[in-house]
Amino acid sequence: MTAARHDAVEVIAAKRDGHVLSDSQIDWVVDGFTSGEVADVQMASLAMAIVLNGMEFPEIARWTDAMIRSGERMDFSGLSWPTSDKHSTGGVGDKITLPLAPLVAACGVAVPQLSGRGLGHTGGTLDKLEAIPGWRADLTNEEMLAQLEDVGAVICAAGAGLAPADKKLYALRDVTGTVESIPLIASSIMSKKIAEGTGSLVLDVKVGSGAFMKDLDKARELARTMVALGKAAGVDTRALVTDMSTPLGLTAGNAVEVAESVEVLAGGGPADVVDLTVALAREMLSAAGREDKDPADVLASGGAMDVWRRMIAAQGGDPDAALPTARETTVVTADRDGYVARIDAMAVGLAAWRLGAGRSRPGEAVQATAGVTLHARPGDAVRSGQPLMTLQTETPERFERALAALDGGYDITDAAPSVPESPVLERIV
Amino acid sequence: MTAARHDAVEVIAAKRDGHVLSDSQIDWVVDGFTSGEVADVQMASLAMAIVLNGMEFPEIARWTDAMIRSGERMDFSGLSWPTSDKHSTGGVGDKITLPLAPLVAACGVAVPQLSGRGLGHTGGTLDKLEAIPGWRADLTNEEMLAQLEDVGAVICAAGAGLAPADKKLYALRDVTGTVESIPLIASSIMSKKIAEGTGSLVLDVKVGSGAFMKDLDKARELARTMVALGKAAGVDTRALVTDMSTPLGLTAGNAVEVAESVEVLAGGGPADVVDLTVALAREMLSAAGREDKDPADVLASGGAMDVWRRMIAAQGGDPDAALPTARETTVVTADRDGYVARIDAMAVGLAAWRLGAGRSRPGEAVQATAGVTLHARPGDAVRSGQPLMTLQTETPERFERALAALDGGYDITDAAPSVPESPVLERIV
Repeated sequence: MTAARHDAVEVIAAKRDGHVLSDSQIDWVVDGFTSGEVADVQMASLAMAIVLNGMEFPEIARWTDAMIRSGERMDFSGLSWPTSDKHSTGGVGDKITLPLAPLVAACGVAVPQLSGRGLGHTGGTLDKLEAIPGWRADLTNEEMLAQLEDVGAVICAAGAGLAPADKKLYALRDVTGTVESIPLIASSIMSKKIAEGTGSLVLDVKVGSGAFMKDLDKARELARTMVALGKAAGVDTRALVTDMSTPLGLTAGNAVEVAESVEVLAGGGPADVVDLTVALAREMLSAAGREDKDPADVLASGGAMDVWRRMIAAQGGDPDAALPTARETTVVTADRDGYVARIDAMAVGLAAWRLGAGRSRPGEAVQATAGVTLHARPGDAVRSGQPLMTLQTETPERFERALAALDGGYDITDAAPSVPESPVLERIV
Repeated sequence: MTAARHDAVEVIAAKRDGHVLSDSQIDWVVDGFTSGEVADVQMASLAMAIVLNGMEFPEIARWTDAMIRSGERMDFSGLSWPTSDKHSTGGVGDKITLPLAPLVAACGVAVPQLSGRGLGHTGGTLDKLEAIPGWRADLTNEEMLAQLEDVGAVICAAGAGLAPADKKLYALRDVTGTVESIPLIASSIMSKKIAEGTGSLVLDVKVGSGAFMKDLDKARELARTMVALGKAAGVDTRALVTDMSTPLGLTAGNAVEVAESVEVLAGGGPADVVDLTVALAREMLSAAGREDKDPADVLASGGAMDVWRRMIAAQGGDPDAALPTARETTVVTADRDGYVARIDAMAVGLAAWRLGAGRSRPGEAVQATAGVTLHARPGDAVRSGQPLMTLQTETPERFERALAALDGGYDITDAAPSVPESPVLERIV
């Protein structure tokens, strides 16, 4: 922290008038916001000025650094393993963390995966794992470090002490229409990830209807900004830009996504989930300097499943317990013969959310069993009357609004559509 | 008020993304802000979006109307007089309200002048009048109406019930760097003035170093917007754009400005003050439909002075009492022979403020006797050593910073400068 004194209106006016904020202005305003000297109304106004006038890269880097310095920073340098972490910007059916963390650990790189709960149409990794009987998300730092050293993989809730400025700012942005800003999104994600202390980082930047970023140019810009922020902080960072116009795999929900992840760990599972898991594992191993292992081989060998079972058990979960299933289901069938040409990620995400898999406000409970299971993917031939998807919930009154979300959310055509081989669109290093 | 339901983030996002807000969105957000349903942080973000993305005229008109409807509205239609009001956007040495209100009343048009206290380098009309022993600014609505009917002129503090949305918004804008917006400035001024219930209105829009608007284009845009807002609300409104690069008259402060105003009422006073007073009086009489009287004649006849004395006495003041004078003075002298080419309004305003004539925070006390008296105006010949201005205060430790404000704030040149005949630059009807 610098000793320079500033004034909130001066800093706001500088950004409002299109100027570049100085290091000293950024340090002062982030520190003042954390302490309360800069009022929430002032940060709200500054955030909107940043949304509309942007920040140059050195400003974003300083802003990120100031948010990291607002709290504690974890340190894994005492481990006997190299570390790598993964962050996804959020998608529908995105259970990749579940098979990925044990897979990378099985290849010799420890994965300290601090995750969050879901909000809106994209699920949260912790919500999914909580469908496993006994599993708990909250670990002390000591438990986390011990599990990392012992198992090589941990997926748990982030402590409140990391980047508190970001937590406070994110809550403010959420209610003031100031989420939509690449500088603010990039600095929010990277301040948390860098404070979490990983040695290397791979970003999965989603693009498409079910993602926050709807177009490729913006996703690419976000990915480039975050990769540069990681490197500026000394963390080897790379990104894959991946498709989120279609849900990942055949499930969107909580228990259903765990089940699909276990299939992948057992050597099966949908091709797109396997493809993305292996692609991200390769990046993490490369970033951590362990390119000697091929994650596809390790997955096939069952090594990742072994780590999964130990990781779940270490956090109180029973890897052999049956996963809960929904009390009520309803099936959507094809209304004609043809090929599935499109299944919209946003429509499926919204349906799963409305079925009870997601929450509208922080702290709300979610249903472990709620979700959508697809019976066909784009490119598959279907016949009239054949099941397309099953909707699952504990509360059947939710079906009506979930079905409404799916209305117009998929197409069946006469001609077979061309389907991309992999969800990976671009690699940014 | 409409029954439509909106969401604050929806309204903020619409303006953030450059859309025109609907009537229903504007009504909802202004009403919600007044009631507290729209949080201050949300209005701060919206205000910055308005600063940067603007509002079209129909939006500004609706916003103004919503702020008027947030509170009570005065009504002078029961008076036996037509009414006209004047508003100045604020300048240095701008005592025009003091001679103007009694002059217009002496011409047959009642002036219900609800005024404010000063903040920063521009003084407030109430602060000036409070230099008169016994005079009080706070009247009940009944006292105000009775005085208007009896005397034809009243200058008093605005009640808290008028446009409460504007009061709350102005306080927020002041700390969030969102003052600088023609839509927000115009709607703030006009919502108060229209709620005050005048039948017609003349605006004095200042431009120059000592004014809020530094360039003519912006001042003209503000004037046009406000005139259109007044007309849209059924109030005959017109504007003069006037120069504020040089202080008005020879005084800037409180008691010194009252003394100069009394000189004008007595038929003397600086030419620019007389000129602007008469020009604004003509506009007010014309707007109120009383073009039969020539205010220059009425001023010369002493009729305005009679109204002044009755107006001051009606509010507890003694028009014959000696005005207080400062205990400490210091004189700035010319350092060469030549012509005064420039006296900067901002420099003089800042000096007067620092001497104690103005306040930095609402509620601070001001010194009745503090201020600056000029002994020469632009165009005057001066000799080396001749007094240029006298600084007055109760607290001599203030001289140093006041003199620093004047450093570089005036020029003496060999050639006589060309000096404009009148401070009136443009008339906008």
